[in-house]
Amino acid sequence: MSLSAVSLRGLPEVRAGDDLAALLSGAGAPFRGGDVLVVAHKVVSKAEGRVRDLADVEPGPRARELAARLERDPRHVQAVLDEAVEVLREERALICRTRHGFVCANAGVDASNAGARDRVVLLPEDPDASARRLRARLGELAGARPAVIISDSFGRAWRHGQAEVAIGCAGLRPLDDWRGRPDSGGRELRATWIAVADEAAAAADLARAGKDAGEPAVVIRGLERFVTPEDGPGATALLRPSAEDLFV
Amino acid sequence: MSLSAVSLRGLPEVRAGDDLAALLSGAGAPFRGGDVLVVAHKVVSKAEGRVRDLADVEPGPRARELAARLERDPRHVQAVLDEAVEVLREERALICRTRHGFVCANAGVDASNAGARDRVVLLPEDPDASARRLRARLGELAGARPAVIISDSFGRAWRHGQAEVAIGCAGLRPLDDWRGRPDSGGRELRATWIAVADEAAAAADLARAGKDAGEPAVVIRGLERFVTPEDGPGATALLRPSAEDLFV
Repeated sequence: MSLSAVSLRGLPEVRAGDDLAALLSGAGAPFRGGDVLVVAHKVVSKAEGRVRDLADVEPGPRARELAARLERDPRHVQAVLDEAVEVLREERALICRTRHGFVCANAGVDASNAGARDRVVLLPEDPDASARRLRARLGELAGARPAVIISDSFGRAWRHGQAEVAIGCAGLRPLDDWRGRPDSGGRELRATWIAVADEAAAAADLARAGKDAGEPAVVIRGLERFVTPEDGPGATALLRPSAEDLFV
Repeated sequence: MSLSAVSLRGLPEVRAGDDLAALLSGAGAPFRGGDVLVVAHKVVSKAEGRVRDLADVEPGPRARELAARLERDPRHVQAVLDEAVEVLREERALICRTRHGFVCANAGVDASNAGARDRVVLLPEDPDASARRLRARLGELAGARPAVIISDSFGRAWRHGQAEVAIGCAGLRPLDDWRGRPDSGGRELRATWIAVADEAAAAADLARAGKDAGEPAVVIRGLERFVTPEDGPGATALLRPSAEDLFV
């Protein structure tokens, strides 16, 4: 088996209201059915207008207290709290559960590559819906309709560094379930349940030149077996409900 | 930029004492300098004799108690406890810190694809050393000396499914540190520290046909910028010290 991941070049700076699918269709080789297009959420968020200028953010008392302790901009902390339904940890970093159910630093609110000083980019309102819309629009424009993953880089408990994960997807089985199926010796596999969409997001990240290179979109080939005609359950299927989680 | 990942075919069942580098050199295209070879730990562990027959394991009182509660084989639980320095959670699953410092289910002790019923595979004693040895021996046999990653699939807090991560590596910068470097707008990137070795392990996993296919080794091209002449710090650099971790 083999896999290839190629980044799309020449995508312009994305602004609110832009037709991202049209920009992506213009940036690279034509898509084929069975392709998986991985798009860094930042350009999706920008196209959807999911940015905030910190000048418009009025920090409340909790944001001021946390900002003083963590040596942060209190307006940025307020923007984080506005996106969080729960703050799991507030020592050294703000580990939050977002309204979507993702657990990540700063509730996904990020000031880097925001396009302007004192501006932050938020996660899309509903990243699975964003992926479905992007997929449908690509189908209209490009003929072939790739599966779409929207990704962000998340830190991990117990490990240094961040890895790219899927926060939205459409047209892809996000999980490959081998539980109960036999291994190569015929023995039942107990706990093998592969987070395909997250691994694809990680693979795409390695095909980008760097965090400063403006290459937010990557086409992966070789995952046809996970691509589906229907949009499917989305990256929501990757969320472990908090009641089931051992680390809260 | 682009990335390719191709699995090696035709690797035989690996047994204790086998020269894994020779088997890998015989299985695929010749390696090139700059290649990254990702090997599932299971074949490394088997070659190193890191397996246990459960018939030889005498479960103690703690293993019996946990096994009764979790509905497990008490001998398997004892094998897990023998590899763990700390059990972080023991409800529903055994989340352990291994002697190496990895936090994962069952301390990495796994009965699937073990090669025989009532046998379990352990993690290598020192996976970074295993990667260094494999790299050196491949250099002797194949001329070119690829970077080597030894991988395992770990569950994640807050997310369903498992993703492949690096538990050992040699000849690769495991982390790409963008902290303090500028983004595309010249603004300092605050928290961008990419777990390259983990993302490469994830990419390799997608190039395997399946958990029953016996394709434990994958060659990745396109990561030359992370490949180093020296063996480097290994996957140990990916471990967050428990004193720094927010989730213990």
